Amino acid sequence: MVVPALNPVYSTLRINSTRINATIHESCQWGSTPDGGMNRLTANDDDRRVRDWFIATTKEYGCTHKIDAMGNIFAIRPGENNSLPPIAIGSHLDTQPTGGRYDGILGVVSGMEVLKVLHENNVTSYAPLAVINWTNEEGARFPPCMLGSGVWAGQFTTEYGRARVDAAGITLGNELERIGYVGVEACSFQTNPILAHFEVHIEQGPILDQAELPAAVVGGVQSMRWYDMKVVGREAHTGSTPMDRRSDALLGAAKMIVEANRIATTGDLADRGARATIAVINSSPQSINTISGDVQMNLDIRSPFDEDVLEIERQCREGFDKISKEHGLTLTFETIWISPAVNFNETMKQCVRSSALEIGCHLQLTSGAGHDAVYTSKRVPTAMIFARSRDGVSHNPAEYTRPEDCAAAAQVLLGAYLRYDDLVKQEHAAKVADVSIDAVTIKSAVVSQVKVKS
Amino acid sequence: MVVPALNPVYSTLRINSTRINATIHESCQWGSTPDGGMNRLTANDDDRRVRDWFIATTKEYGCTHKIDAMGNIFAIRPGENNSLPPIAIGSHLDTQPTGGRYDGILGVVSGMEVLKVLHENNVTSYAPLAVINWTNEEGARFPPCMLGSGVWAGQFTTEYGRARVDAAGITLGNELERIGYVGVEACSFQTNPILAHFEVHIEQGPILDQAELPAAVVGGVQSMRWYDMKVVGREAHTGSTPMDRRSDALLGAAKMIVEANRIATTGDLADRGARATIAVINSSPQSINTISGDVQMNLDIRSPFDEDVLEIERQCREGFDKISKEHGLTLTFETIWISPAVNFNETMKQCVRSSALEIGCHLQLTSGAGHDAVYTSKRVPTAMIFARSRDGVSHNPAEYTRPEDCAAAAQVLLGAYLRYDDLVKQEHAAKVADVSIDAVTIKSAVVSQVKVKS
Repeated sequence: MVVPALNPVYSTLRINSTRINATIHESCQWGSTPDGGMNRLTANDDDRRVRDWFIATTKEYGCTHKIDAMGNIFAIRPGENNSLPPIAIGSHLDTQPTGGRYDGILGVVSGMEVLKVLHENNVTSYAPLAVINWTNEEGARFPPCMLGSGVWAGQFTTEYGRARVDAAGITLGNELERIGYVGVEACSFQTNPILAHFEVHIEQGPILDQAELPAAVVGGVQSMRWYDMKVVGREAHTGSTPMDRRSDALLGAAKMIVEANRIATTGDLADRGARATIAVINSSPQSINTISGDVQMNLDIRSPFDEDVLEIERQCREGFDKISKEHGLTLTFETIWISPAVNFNETMKQCVRSSALEIGCHLQLTSGAGHDAVYTSKRVPTAMIFARSRDGVSHNPAEYTRPEDCAAAAQVLLGAYLRYDDLVKQEHAAKVADVSIDAVTIKSAVVSQVKVKS
Repeated sequence: MVVPALNPVYSTLRINSTRINATIHESCQWGSTPDGGMNRLTANDDDRRVRDWFIATTKEYGCTHKIDAMGNIFAIRPGENNSLPPIAIGSHLDTQPTGGRYDGILGVVSGMEVLKVLHENNVTSYAPLAVINWTNEEGARFPPCMLGSGVWAGQFTTEYGRARVDAAGITLGNELERIGYVGVEACSFQTNPILAHFEVHIEQGPILDQAELPAAVVGGVQSMRWYDMKVVGREAHTGSTPMDRRSDALLGAAKMIVEANRIATTGDLADRGARATIAVINSSPQSINTISGDVQMNLDIRSPFDEDVLEIERQCREGFDKISKEHGLTLTFETIWISPAVNFNETMKQCVRSSALEIGCHLQLTSGAGHDAVYTSKRVPTAMIFARSRDGVSHNPAEYTRPEDCAAAAQVLLGAYLRYDDLVKQEHAAKVADVSIDAVTIKSAVVSQVKVKS
């Protein structure tokens, strides 16, 4: 694999640190919370406003727009060869209900900043550039997460995506229509292809902060599975029901929460980075003097290794069954989301690595969280760049990435993007000379779908 | 203490089993659920409808009505001596959100059936009779429970009672106004006195079912305390936050639920009938991939002994503090309701006992649950009768008391009520003859407030 040095004509291009940070906070005027955090759930009015702003701003910098059936927005700046699909830089503008100002937002704004740098320096890239805002990455309002990119990548159907409901029973499809963000473009990598996908994201963990580095290459994403659990016991009076005659669903659920934690923090699984969390719980009937009869919970299991996720699941099922028997409870346990471990594209990682080394960032991390890049990686060469999270805090109003770290991550992106665009140009020149597609360096799942006029 | 045998003129009076059971189910047409249970929360539209029905029905049987500022309804049938406050039979028509058809309802309907038996047999009692529907006994919508009787007994102010809010932030006062049940009568044992209070209630526990007895005398009510708990941790991403760097509020809360259960099921406390339950839990932000930052729970502690309740509280505080420290959580722990152990009035219990023995019911139980009788007992002689609960199940749609057991409990009530009315008559005759009130058998806290014309 030959990754060229940065084309010398681009060597003076610099991210504007002041501007990128101002843009982050400009975008946060919609959905900001008094504690300095964000609450911009998918397809609410603030999401509509930030989408309007995203389109208006990228239009000023020469973009045209495609909006697809899932509300994903592609802001496209033409290149030298507009018969090619664009190279994309994408992330998301939706947030957790008690989220911060960087998760997802930094990724979209980094793409906007690359766009601005190209525009103000009159750089014409070889392939077009697309800055993408993917819909409903968080999945906080409409589970599962990474839904817009998942539908685009063919992991879910559009019908499935649009039929997801929030806690009030409202569908994502109806809400997207309400805010005017159902586009005419089909949501598909086949009919609306991209050539590659870069994503800048905050680390959301403590490693870069401990290493005192602003940014890192992301090697891949850990394996993840989500489960829906229902624990059914028997409602009874708390005062008149002896302790040994109860089927207390909440007591059983509490023991399961403790058990999942025990499994993920014990032995080899723990040493290899296992994580198991229950963060959603709904108990019924929620009356102080009526023993809980019914509990719903969601379990989130992760590990760098697919086989460890399955082993944690096996141990949880075994432990939960034992607890259920002990308390006379009925348990249903259903897998609702599977995301296998991901290794990103080697050529793209090499572009990121070369660019990162220029500012002294030598670390490669594995992402603990899912990102839109997980789904794009199923279809096109994909890579990610992490920016340092102060204290590793995320999904929290206190989430913070220093202005200089935001700029550093975007600078790594700019260099990686320009290298990759140059590779595409070289590949295309080679292809025009020799149609033997096997000979080219970049292995892209969409190359075969691209109409190359030779 | 001399409790007379039943006056022979009343010896033929019988509860109409068919009628009392039909009345129970007639009243359940408002708020019934498809699973055979009830959901009639205080001051909702179904509560309004069943109140309208209660007034209309008792009016047919010769009652006039007083409604007080808390919406408590007193259906009063005149007696021979209408200068006396009435002897009351009361309970409640509100239910749990997933409740049954007997809890509270049997008590009010038993009072209505006694009224009907007196009416159809042209019996004029000595004191007036009041059948009472107390507001918000369950406290399921507007905590705390036993609120209407509590305000009447001066345990809470009317302002406090009317300011209680439901989960949507609506006050009880506003809801009572909305359904038209704020009466002109002050809610007070002083201005709207009763002479004594009987209450029939389902046992809500398994003892009578195991003993194969339809009904029992209730000796008193166990000691109870409710607590509000808040556990604060730190929201963080479930995927990127290592297990050893978390402050997971829900994990801590789960350990507290398990700990409270352990304390109440261990050693001497357990042997003496300790109960500790957490049945209300609210976790925030309820997103699958954000570690819980904030949990609210309510703890319910009970024991026949006040000192055991305090010891369970002490052990819980100690255990919860340890768990909080271990996980870096902040815990607040606040007592929101105290109901000390109650022993009912000996004379009234003797009336119940004599009547119960006539149908072979020799058991005396301690109530595990709170009832309106707890608060009335603070002000006037009070006694209770339990009816058998099938399998001890209550606060559950499957709650069931057999028709013959409903009738048996009401028959015990009728006999006890008639005996007590006779005692009042004898006492009054004695008092007319001799104003030395100390000499009389019945010690009533309201006697001194009653205007006795001598």
